[in-house]
Amino acid sequence: MASVPTLSSTDIKTFMTAALEEAKKAGARGEVPIGAVIVKDGEIIASTGNRREEDQKTDAHAEMHAILAANEKLGSWRLEDTALFVTLEPCLMCAGAILNARIPLVYFGAQDKKAGAVTSLYSVFDDDRLNHQVKVIPGVLKDESAALLKDFFRGLRAKQKAKKRAAKENEHLS
Amino acid sequence: MASVPTLSSTDIKTFMTAALEEAKKAGARGEVPIGAVIVKDGEIIASTGNRREEDQKTDAHAEMHAILAANEKLGSWRLEDTALFVTLEPCLMCAGAILNARIPLVYFGAQDKKAGAVTSLYSVFDDDRLNHQVKVIPGVLKDESAALLKDFFRGLRAKQKAKKRAAKENEHLS
Repeated sequence: MASVPTLSSTDIKTFMTAALEEAKKAGARGEVPIGAVIVKDGEIIASTGNRREEDQKTDAHAEMHAILAANEKLGSWRLEDTALFVTLEPCLMCAGAILNARIPLVYFGAQDKKAGAVTSLYSVFDDDRLNHQVKVIPGVLKDESAALLKDFFRGLRAKQKAKKRAAKENEHLS
Repeated sequence: MASVPTLSSTDIKTFMTAALEEAKKAGARGEVPIGAVIVKDGEIIASTGNRREEDQKTDAHAEMHAILAANEKLGSWRLEDTALFVTLEPCLMCAGAILNARIPLVYFGAQDKKAGAVTSLYSVFDDDRLNHQVKVIPGVLKDESAALLKDFFRGLRAKQKAKKRAAKENEHLS
């Protein structure tokens, strides 16, 4: 029988901080800053950030990459007895992958009100029609996670504005 | 502006038959027989079957592999102007990936009453809270798709029974 891991509040902070570090690295690569880690027996077995622009792959969300890395590490598509930490609420694809992987426990940071499938738009981890349910703890280091995303999108908008202004000035010159 | 491809009934049959061929190949490899193809401009650009046992990867469903192959082919995580054909109703993970890839049109064969996220347990393609909607046509060659799955699971049960019987006989001998 698979079990839900037990983690202390210090562990939880440590692992979500590791996910935040992955999010920061993703942001530095020009990606939306989201990070994830997977933990088994008190140790991080997968640690990844969003790579969608770099990879140009639909599945390159932080959680999916973490799941695939953990699959590789454990030699199995099943990730029982693990916990996944992610800085943003999972979307339908990632929540579906977490269910398919039989991950029993998920901690996430900020809510995703536009696409979140766990507490925002759907509650798929709590659906007893499915063959697996997931315990979910939302809001871990949520302010730090949300601030990273806010800063990233503010920077993106500033860049887009500057680009438009430069294009306009070029028009005047030509 | 992305458009929804238009396909004739002959095209639809041809492409779902190609997906069924992939499902048969998956079954021959010992996988649950599910196949998928992605079509763009009237041509198949990705054609894949379920490989979860072989790959031991959580994401190795037919649709996910087809999406990743199409990403590779088109050099983009966006798959606008394509149509996806799959022999079984997509699960949450695959439906989420289809949404994330901005695929506008999906044909599927048999319904998945235990895990289907498109017409059975959820209707995620029709959710106007999300930033993308998908036109879905269910039931294409559904009898053929369902028969493949039924035969596979019947075979699996027979094998398991034979295994149990052999184990019991060994017990008697020892």
